[in-house]
Amino acid sequence: MKLTILGCYSATPRILTNPTSQVLEMRGNMFLIDCGEGTQVQLRKHKIKFSRIKHIFISHLHGDHFFGLVGLVSTFRLLGREADLHIYGPKGIKEIITLQMKLADSWTNYNLIFHELTSNDSELIYEDDKVEVYTIPLEHRVYTNGFLFKEKEGNRKLDINAVEEANIDVAYYRKLTQGFDVVNENGETIKNEDVTKDAVKPKSYAFCSDTMYKEDIVPLIENVDVLYHESTFLETQSHLAPKTKHSTAKEAASIAKKANAGTLLLGHYSTRYKDVNCFKEEAKEVFQAVELTQDGKVFEF
Amino acid sequence: MKLTILGCYSATPRILTNPTSQVLEMRGNMFLIDCGEGTQVQLRKHKIKFSRIKHIFISHLHGDHFFGLVGLVSTFRLLGREADLHIYGPKGIKEIITLQMKLADSWTNYNLIFHELTSNDSELIYEDDKVEVYTIPLEHRVYTNGFLFKEKEGNRKLDINAVEEANIDVAYYRKLTQGFDVVNENGETIKNEDVTKDAVKPKSYAFCSDTMYKEDIVPLIENVDVLYHESTFLETQSHLAPKTKHSTAKEAASIAKKANAGTLLLGHYSTRYKDVNCFKEEAKEVFQAVELTQDGKVFEF
Repeated sequence: MKLTILGCYSATPRILTNPTSQVLEMRGNMFLIDCGEGTQVQLRKHKIKFSRIKHIFISHLHGDHFFGLVGLVSTFRLLGREADLHIYGPKGIKEIITLQMKLADSWTNYNLIFHELTSNDSELIYEDDKVEVYTIPLEHRVYTNGFLFKEKEGNRKLDINAVEEANIDVAYYRKLTQGFDVVNENGETIKNEDVTKDAVKPKSYAFCSDTMYKEDIVPLIENVDVLYHESTFLETQSHLAPKTKHSTAKEAASIAKKANAGTLLLGHYSTRYKDVNCFKEEAKEVFQAVELTQDGKVFEF
Repeated sequence: MKLTILGCYSATPRILTNPTSQVLEMRGNMFLIDCGEGTQVQLRKHKIKFSRIKHIFISHLHGDHFFGLVGLVSTFRLLGREADLHIYGPKGIKEIITLQMKLADSWTNYNLIFHELTSNDSELIYEDDKVEVYTIPLEHRVYTNGFLFKEKEGNRKLDINAVEEANIDVAYYRKLTQGFDVVNENGETIKNEDVTKDAVKPKSYAFCSDTMYKEDIVPLIENVDVLYHESTFLETQSHLAPKTKHSTAKEAASIAKKANAGTLLLGHYSTRYKDVNCFKEEAKEVFQAVELTQDGKVFEF
């Protein structure tokens, strides 16, 4: 599981800081999460192949989370993309993008498939044989979802030496990875646990931005390996948090603690703060395993 | 007259090149012309005060000319702008911007005034006491206008030494700058030309992008001081120009020559060309006074 932060600042793009966008690499998928203005240039800078992006998740329709989307869709068209592109986001996102394509008389040659979200309950919005993605309903000034990316339980790993010693035909290897016992070439039953090892533990990532402190997301993200939770403010500006429906670093840490998260990533910093290390310090008073996101930073878990 | 090139490449924003946007400073006005993605960051880089921009001119609704507009409008709102903002562009531009404000529940606190263009004839779209702006109907894949910015004839300049020697009361100075003869304190009539100098010659700037070769714009831009004419291609790719409704450097130069322009600026280069000097060389075969635009380059005329 690899997470590349393309932008992690709030409000507006600036010379050295970018609005929200992340790429999550999970079991062969490259999920783009949010797409502020300038995201396509950030993708180029970080050498992320455009063609690998097949699913884009947009949390909400504030500009710092999606103004780069129409440009990316348009660039894909100019580059001759043929593969389907799935966009998950609040109702209205389809109208915004298609209106601009219509007025530019520039329809994509590839399939652009919108999955518009309206539910206030968590729902499964994407699934393949290795990964599931659920919404995390958040509380912000407009309809907003976070996203929970979960690896599925993988297959068991063959213990190659043990398998060969046990004289098992290659044709049974697949059965073994699926957890079955098999019969070897001598007609003996070989127990699965004697020739396989546990599958790699499935990982999970929760993206929660933008939102005010919302305790009822805790059951949805319980035991998540990595939680990105917005922390627009420090406690010194905590009066602004409920007003603007954002969170403080301390509140993000409280959510991480209650959810028993593995690691908490902070971001969506207000540009009023010169030094973001204070966010980490504040969060650590509540929850130890805290990391600061920064534009261009790559996390491997 | 000062022109700052924020972006002059076609199609998509890249790490080192930006899509079309320019700032023209003319008699105290700061006109923003086109607004590709990333324009607000380019404005910051070039230290152009956001508050000085009161009029934005959008040539057409292809993304590389206006995908940065909604972000700029939104940033003005976040920065607490109060001054009116006028946007001139093709019909549809208002719907695109207001739809996004509606879905983000983020209306501007300042007046956003759209001037939607539909005419296929040149028209006066802005005027104050010092400047006029006309559309230049162009020929592209969608409805497109260039813009002609013209300084008005200014007042005559006082020859301070001559005025004082002629013993003229200060109250008459304004009359003198307006070209009138006046009577001095001794009752003698003083001829205007004896105590004043000609006004500064009014300057003009024509922005023509995107367009295929269109000779009938020549009468509209005759004797223009500075002509920016798109040159997406070189003659080696001239077969692509009519197909995509763009121009070659040679065609841009032909327009400049026929219009008797002072200086030709080239831009909107296709990113297929590594070295843009070839554009200058090609244009110079037809028209001598050619300059290449580059992102960040400032021209003073």
